[in-house]
Amino acid sequence: MKRFGACAVVIGNEVLTAKVEDQNGPLLIRRLRERGVPLRGVMVVPDEVDEIVEAVQWAKARAEHVFTSGGIGPTHDDVTVRSVALALGRDVVRMPEIERMVREHYGDKATPEALRLADAPAGTVLMRQPGVWYPVLSCEGIYLLPGVPQLFRLQLETVLSQLQGTPVVLRCLYLSLGEAEIAAVLDEIALAMPDVAIGSYPQFGKDVDYRVKVTVEHVDGTRTQAAMEALVARLPSAGILRQE
Amino acid sequence: MKRFGACAVVIGNEVLTAKVEDQNGPLLIRRLRERGVPLRGVMVVPDEVDEIVEAVQWAKARAEHVFTSGGIGPTHDDVTVRSVALALGRDVVRMPEIERMVREHYGDKATPEALRLADAPAGTVLMRQPGVWYPVLSCEGIYLLPGVPQLFRLQLETVLSQLQGTPVVLRCLYLSLGEAEIAAVLDEIALAMPDVAIGSYPQFGKDVDYRVKVTVEHVDGTRTQAAMEALVARLPSAGILRQE
Repeated sequence: MKRFGACAVVIGNEVLTAKVEDQNGPLLIRRLRERGVPLRGVMVVPDEVDEIVEAVQWAKARAEHVFTSGGIGPTHDDVTVRSVALALGRDVVRMPEIERMVREHYGDKATPEALRLADAPAGTVLMRQPGVWYPVLSCEGIYLLPGVPQLFRLQLETVLSQLQGTPVVLRCLYLSLGEAEIAAVLDEIALAMPDVAIGSYPQFGKDVDYRVKVTVEHVDGTRTQAAMEALVARLPSAGILRQE
Repeated sequence: MKRFGACAVVIGNEVLTAKVEDQNGPLLIRRLRERGVPLRGVMVVPDEVDEIVEAVQWAKARAEHVFTSGGIGPTHDDVTVRSVALALGRDVVRMPEIERMVREHYGDKATPEALRLADAPAGTVLMRQPGVWYPVLSCEGIYLLPGVPQLFRLQLETVLSQLQGTPVVLRCLYLSLGEAEIAAVLDEIALAMPDVAIGSYPQFGKDVDYRVKVTVEHVDGTRTQAAMEALVARLPSAGILRQE
């Protein structure tokens, strides 16, 4: 499998049990899109070592960059560090540099449990950012981000500032035709231009004036344009409400 | 692996590319919780056969009930039926009963592409609901739901009405202590009562009066209560703001 782009692993019983609606996944999706880093998939898994190991391996198999969210605090349900280490076949080691930061941050409250924050998979690199006391742990392209949304948001930007992306050129067609009527044309163009991503999204709400939105995208705008022209040439012109 | 509860597979390039924020996953999470069906995990994958096959197999390995969302229309990017069939080692067959419904629904617009809606994995059972023309396809505990939120919502209820659940009894403790200070107590009680799910959620916002919320849950309320009492007995009482 060719590895490219990013995957996300959201770790949290609180999400799966509807105690909290996940904000980190949706934020990551939007920010990766803006940075032009393709997202290959997202998994939401419970705070269980076996489940996280499998999710990280799934993510690592297809993406260059893996973002985990959650499970990196000092309590019993924080098992992300251990799980990522297992997934990579690495030991968990105490990082002296983080241990210093934890002792500084917690002062006389630096309990043995607080010091768990200084544990990381062997070979972890720290990504620091001014104004955030705890660094991002990064190991083999896996970024271990916290689950708390305010912290996730900050640390995500630390990572994104170091990634290279290629924004996509997107265009849309709004149609008064139904999907069944356009499927043959879409089939044909999707087959002839396999490098272009063509999506078809029906709408059934009363608050929209179209029946289907067709999206066309490519990192090369001339390919987006060529696919748009092919669609407009083949679809019945009376069915095209507008282009964007 | 013991199979229980549910998993979800959200299929949609539009979600991964931030064109649409997924509503189906969050709705499913809430409704399963309300019905008392535990959710083991969620995957969001692109409209690609290989990716969907792998996601369905992951879901099937751990859950009795698998909900897919998206990819069941008539266009080239609708590959869910084919992928689920592959994941189960079944053929795709045309279902005469659905073919009749499609012909009735579409009339003279029943193109060959529209008739793709009548294809399903061999052995599929139809779950019908008054007022919804298209039935839910159900095969070996996999429910193939549409991606369009209005339709997903309707069809989800058709399925949920037929599932048995056991609602969970949840209680919460709000603390003025930090996670590092309570981790040792939580560790000990989580270890002594492994059947009880204990969660610890720090808060850093200025709009809350607590530092950590501890959640305790079990399908048996007496176990929830026992764990709560153990926590309250062991945590410094000055740090407990309130119980809920």
